[in-house]
Amino acid sequence: MNDVGGVDVTALQSEGLRRGDECHNRNVASSAALVAQLAPSIARRAQDANAAADLLAFMAGNPHFFLSFSIASAKAIGDAAHRAGEPGLVTAICANGRSLGVRVSGLGDRWFTAPVHVPRGLYFPGFEPEDANPDIGDSAIVETIGLGGFAMAASPSVVRFVGAGGLADAIRITEEMAEICLGEHPHFRMPTLDERGTPVGIDVCRVVETGIAPLINTGIAGRAPGTGQIGAGVVRAPLACFEAAVAALVSEPGPRNG
Amino acid sequence: MNDVGGVDVTALQSEGLRRGDECHNRNVASSAALVAQLAPSIARRAQDANAAADLLAFMAGNPHFFLSFSIASAKAIGDAAHRAGEPGLVTAICANGRSLGVRVSGLGDRWFTAPVHVPRGLYFPGFEPEDANPDIGDSAIVETIGLGGFAMAASPSVVRFVGAGGLADAIRITEEMAEICLGEHPHFRMPTLDERGTPVGIDVCRVVETGIAPLINTGIAGRAPGTGQIGAGVVRAPLACFEAAVAALVSEPGPRNG
Repeated sequence: MNDVGGVDVTALQSEGLRRGDECHNRNVASSAALVAQLAPSIARRAQDANAAADLLAFMAGNPHFFLSFSIASAKAIGDAAHRAGEPGLVTAICANGRSLGVRVSGLGDRWFTAPVHVPRGLYFPGFEPEDANPDIGDSAIVETIGLGGFAMAASPSVVRFVGAGGLADAIRITEEMAEICLGEHPHFRMPTLDERGTPVGIDVCRVVETGIAPLINTGIAGRAPGTGQIGAGVVRAPLACFEAAVAALVSEPGPRNG
Repeated sequence: MNDVGGVDVTALQSEGLRRGDECHNRNVASSAALVAQLAPSIARRAQDANAAADLLAFMAGNPHFFLSFSIASAKAIGDAAHRAGEPGLVTAICANGRSLGVRVSGLGDRWFTAPVHVPRGLYFPGFEPEDANPDIGDSAIVETIGLGGFAMAASPSVVRFVGAGGLADAIRITEEMAEICLGEHPHFRMPTLDERGTPVGIDVCRVVETGIAPLINTGIAGRAPGTGQIGAGVVRAPLACFEAAVAALVSEPGPRNG
């Protein structure tokens, strides 16, 4: 019996979409799949039985365990797209609780930033909107590779979890995101849309032309330091980021990849 | 860290429907969930690390590992319904490769049987319809508790796997099965149908009145002994079983539960 020899995150994400995860706000099925994939090697290689059991319990007990793998994979893909892509492709999105920034191919290492909104969503018991911080975190990079809000149609459960409706609303959101994307993902197929690929490749020009801001599935963090996650919802990336990127593309024409 | 202390199969099935399983022909997400749930205890309690690893690899390597749990749970529920239910409820379905039989509450331990069909579906590479045996197995009991074909809408991936179309077809099948059922399941909710419960409680009178035969998601077994599974598809339970049960209900009126 061999060890795992690496984890194909894209394959897990592709299968995750078949299991109702959009791989940002819902990772529970992909997390279980990853635990099942790694469990034999963990049991075999751990220092002792209790160490294996504790590690497996930690992994299995966190329904978002897979999210870190998604983020790391999206960063690698985003960086490759940034080097290779045609100018104007969004290759990273992140927020720090005050500003949201986007990185755009053809425009170097700059971040185009604007004040970030507070997500709309549902709150865990004991919390309400005034406890919320504006959006924070680097996980929105998964939206740039066709997951999260862009894959909403694959996850009718998550739209309910974030207070955004049912299957029809989930499909509507994915179809709206398709209007600002250059293509459909060849591997991230949605059984709820009869195997159509998720929209991928956010084009800053299309965002500005349509006025459709990328929709991000996100956790809601508490304002008070140390509170952690207090809910889950959706947030739109501010249009000003994309307007600034388009202005830069226009004023600085020519190949500037890298 | 405590041991598992029992497995709530109904909870796993309910969550499985959120993960694209209908828990008969597609069990891959529920199998991973079960592996993740049991892995810590297996790692802690196994005789040695290799035994734990081998067991976990066996469990994680079989995408239908959860099916046996579903069948056993459905048998317990079906038996309880048989004792308690009003006359005319289908409490078990099974087939032996020649006949399909149904057991009906109010009609004792008899089986109402008729020749069983060959499933329609897709074949694994190297096999074709003439290699197929008429339907065989006891797994169709899960259809009597609102899973399998009755939960088709929850699993658009499975309709494609069995060659039965896309999401609209999956929803149509579940809605057709609702016409022959007494209710909707309180726990088996389908995110693809905005949290509606799966149809449950097959009523032999409704089957005969509507002419709608229960649709079973099933594996296709090879005719040649030892071949095993050669494909996956759907099969209708023969109407003659239900006609015979209705005739028995009419000719033998009165309470006969048990």
